[in-house]
Order: sequence, then C-alpha cells, then structure tokens
Amino acid sequence: MSHELVARLLKGEPRAIARSISMVEDGTEGSPDLMKGVFPKTGNAVVIGITGSPGAGKSSLVDKLALFYRKRGDKIGIIAVDPSSPFSGGAILGDRIRMQTLGLDPNVFIRSMATRGKLGGLARATVDAVAILDAAGYDKVIVETVGVGQDEVEIVKTADVSVVVLVPGMGDDIQAIKAGIMEIGDVFVINKADREGVIRAEKELEALLSLAHRNDFWDPPIVKTVATESKGIEDLAGAIESFYEYQSTGEKGLERRRSIAKWRLMELLQERLIRDMLSNNGTAEMLEDLALEVAEKRQDPYSAIESLLAKS
Amino acid sequence: MSHELVARLLKGEPRAIARSISMVEDGTEGSPDLMKGVFPKTGNAVVIGITGSPGAGKSSLVDKLALFYRKRGDKIGIIAVDPSSPFSGGAILGDRIRMQTLGLDPNVFIRSMATRGKLGGLARATVDAVAILDAAGYDKVIVETVGVGQDEVEIVKTADVSVVVLVPGMGDDIQAIKAGIMEIGDVFVINKADREGVIRAEKELEALLSLAHRNDFWDPPIVKTVATESKGIEDLAGAIESFYEYQSTGEKGLERRRSIAKWRLMELLQERLIRDMLSNNGTAEMLEDLALEVAEKRQDPYSAIESLLAKS
Repeated sequence: MSHELVARLLKGEPRAIARSISMVEDGTEGSPDLMKGVFPKTGNAVVIGITGSPGAGKSSLVDKLALFYRKRGDKIGIIAVDPSSPFSGGAILGDRIRMQTLGLDPNVFIRSMATRGKLGGLARATVDAVAILDAAGYDKVIVETVGVGQDEVEIVKTADVSVVVLVPGMGDDIQAIKAGIMEIGDVFVINKADREGVIRAEKELEALLSLAHRNDFWDPPIVKTVATESKGIEDLAGAIESFYEYQSTGEKGLERRRSIAKWRLMELLQERLIRDMLSNNGTAEMLEDLALEVAEKRQDPYSAIESLLAKS
Repeated sequence: MSHELVARLLKGEPRAIARSISMVEDGTEGSPDLMKGVFPKTGNAVVIGITGSPGAGKSSLVDKLALFYRKRGDKIGIIAVDPSSPFSGGAILGDRIRMQTLGLDPNVFIRSMATRGKLGGLARATVDAVAILDAAGYDKVIVETVGVGQDEVEIVKTADVSVVVLVPGMGDDIQAIKAGIMEIGDVFVINKADREGVIRAEKELEALLSLAHRNDFWDPPIVKTVATESKGIEDLAGAIESFYEYQSTGEKGLERRRSIAKWRLMELLQERLIRDMLSNNGTAEMLEDLALEVAEKRQDPYSAIESLLAKS
C-alpha cells in the first residue's frame, strides 16, 4: 500500500502527493515507511523559506516568484505554514485567493499546513512535506510561514535559502530584531518598496546586518520589490540563486545540512517518545486525571509527571 | 538550598525571584523541587496574556496598563516572551526602554524570556515563571509575547485573561485570522485608535468575531486605546476584570484551568522524556553521528530514530 503510494508520488501524481502529505501531517502509522521510501529520492529541489512580519506581503511575493520560476520551466511546490490556528485549522481564505492565480497550472502544487494538535509536530510535518515534493520532482519548493514565532523560524532555517521580508515604516525593522529573524536571513527583501521610507528602511537594515553575527562569510543582499507590480522579482531570484550556489560549495553546505538533520532527528525523537508513552495502557487516562488534580491544586505539575513516569 | 530560595522568593525578594526564574529557564536540576515549593502558594495573581501583530504597540500598552494597576496599589510582574532569538537571546533593546519608565519602581518586576535551545521549553519555562511571580505576591502578572506563532498562542492561552491587540489598517485584521489568534482573545484592543481606519477596523473585527466559534458564551469586548497617550487604559482594565470575573465562576473556570494543566503536563512530559533519553550514556553522541549520516543521505531520519531507540 505504502509502496504503491511511494511509486505514484515519485512519478509526480498530484493525488498521491496530496495523500502522502496528509499522512505525514496526521502522523499516521504508515508515514515512517512512506518517508523511508521518499528520502533516497530527495536532494534535487531548491528549498526556499520565506518569512517576515504579518502584512509584509509575503503571499504576493511567493506568488510572483512562483510565476517567475514557472516561466523558466520549473515545477513549483508551495507550502504555506499556518501554525497557530489550533481550533479552525488553516488559512482557507489565503488559499482560495492563491488558487485563482496559480492553482490551475498543473506544474504548481499548493498546500497549506496547520497545526493538528500537540502531538503532531508541525515543523516536522512541514519538512517531511518538503521532502515529498522534492522527491516528486518539483524543482523549487517554497515554504511560506504566516507567523513569526519560534516554530516558523525553525521551519525557515531548514530551507536551503532563507528569505526575510520586511516593509518600510511601521517600525517593522525593530520588530524583526526582536523576533530574532535577522540572524536567519540569507536574503532580505524590502517589499512595498514604492512606499515612503524605503531608503531609511534600507539604511536601518544595513546597520542591523552589520551588527548581526553570522557564522559564515556571507553578506546577505537586500532586494527591493513591489510584489503587487511584479517589480524586483528577477533580482530576488538572482539573490536566492547566489546564496544557493555559495552554500552548496564545500564544508558550509554540509555543516548546514548536518545541523538541519540534527534538529529534524530531535523533533522526530520527541514526537516518538511522547507517542510511545501515551500509547501505554492507561497513561492517557492517567494524564487526564492528573490534569484535573493540578487544576484543582491538589498536586503540582512536577510531582504529577513523576508519578506518571513511575507508573508507566 | 532550594528550600531557602523558596522561602526567600515567597517573601518577595527580587533577587531570589530572578534567580528562581533563571533556574526554570535553564531547566537546572533543582528546578522541579523549586516549583514543588512554589506551586501551593500560587493562585492569587490575575495572569493577563497580551499578544498581537508586531508593530501593534503591545509594549506601550503593557507599560500603561502596569502604571494604571500600580496607581491602584497592585504589585506588578511583567514577563516579555521573545521566543525566536535562537542566537542572540532576547530583546535587550525593549527591556532597556521599559526599564526607564517602570524599572525603578520596586513593586514592578520585569523580565524577558527567550529561547535557550531546543531542550528547554520556553512555554513551560514561562508558565513556571508566572507561577513564581504569583507565589511571590504579585497581584497582576502580565505576559507579553513578541511573536505571533504557535508557542506564543500557547503561552497566551495559559493566562486567566487573553488580550489580542490590533491596529487600524495594514490588513492586520485579516492577518490576525490567519495567525489564529482570533479564537484565543477574551478581550480585543484596537490600539493607535487615533489613526485613520478605526471604525472600519472595528466593523471588520466585529464581523470576524461573529464568525468565530467560542466554546463559551462570552462575547469578547473591543476596547479602543491610544497607549502612547494613555487613552482607553481604564476601559481595558475594566474589560479584563469583567472577563476574569466571568470565567472564575462555576464550571467554566475549572474547565479552562484543567485544559491549561493538561497542556502543561504534556510540555513537562515531553521535556523530561527527551532529557532522560539524551542523558543515557552515548545517546547524545549517537545522535550527532546519525545527524551526519542523514545529512550525507546515507540514512533516512525515520530509520535513524529507530536505530537510536533500539540501542538505548
């Protein structure tokens, strides 16, 4: 079953791809086997992570970049990560708008990923989904994150090239340092560059970048775009390609892949350990009982965990 | 040692409080014992979580709300959560500005919390820090999150009252749905309400709230503020108090506390399991080796985890 699915997704069948991504997202039983089949076929796609403040125009930028790559003949996968909708699950609105411009093109695969509860790690599922699209023959996989929290940063860090999008004014630059995304940007974009304050934003960004300590010798370029008018998209693609070439050479590329692999193993391990624990007979029920005891202040959380670990 | 520290923090000694928070942040060996001592003394503080888009003016709002409570004689704890600075660790700039307005008041305790690497769960550490301030006699504990990702949403959900801050214009409202923070707001603030577009923002927010499905019968109030001019702060305090009173009564409050307790137990369990695993002889080294094998594509991550679990 999983074998057949892997064969179909490696041929690039969209339905097989969609089903495979759902499997890793839900963390179904067959997903480890699926990923074992997918993994050896990965490594051909260029994975581009795009993050930035809400309102920076990330979605338009992703759409225009995708159109640009399509014109060059590339197959494009887009994963929009929307981690923080624990109740409703996903950015349906954004999807619908995006489908109108790109969705009819059979060489573009679009998928939103949202949280499915605490057990299924979103970051892990996203990285698996990227691997699936990579193995399925997509030349570029763009991962767009909606939020700017820790998970998003981790997800973007797993890309080959990380792009940080800012806008002029609004003190967004300062916010960006706060959110710690300055350190992860390989390429910076000032979008909505037809607005007032572009020069100031660029100066501020340059100053901030000169303060940031990167572990390599890359000097992150700043690209100005007006995504809604398709301006600057070619420059952006050029900057992405430059960094991709830079990091592919020699030790730097391997070091980056090694640290991504380690992070990925930790995510998987964490998920596996807690899943194994909760599948023990009675543990899930005990957790519920203990939660009530903690809520009623009859026990503290640390003692509760110790009693849980002792009994299982 | 931990006993003496607990005694001092329960007396409200700032240095003991600061040291205790550092312990739970670093996840030092003594922290479970510390928290066992702290837990029975908690439950008196009103915990207020404040989140919202970058640039919405959360920090000013928090400062003005703190000043308002100070005038009423309350002791105030402020925790600024900045989850996504994996390299530099923390919002030093924001702290420095804040210290100028509030930092000299001995009845205000301010602390920033940032990520300390993958093992120490930031959300867990933040909730522990809140408990420490609660036990130390702070009447209000305000938790301000800088990002808008999954961790931030989880942290804000553990508060007694969750406040979501928006600004007029910029399409922030739409961004707010995407980031899934609509569902967690008990109170909504439109800050910078002297700007153009306030009425439209309010209408949009009302429309969105009427679509959101809450599990209770609370109708979240919308408060308009201009934090920089201290306008609307009393209204905000009133709205916070109303929800606090509403949710304290009957089953609703217990249900909320139970689900927070469950989340907290899961966080602790996850952290404990992976820590125990990695403290096994040779496991950490094996993980490093496996990471390299995965990076060089000699093994897939899922098989790597299985071999790790099999050997330990």
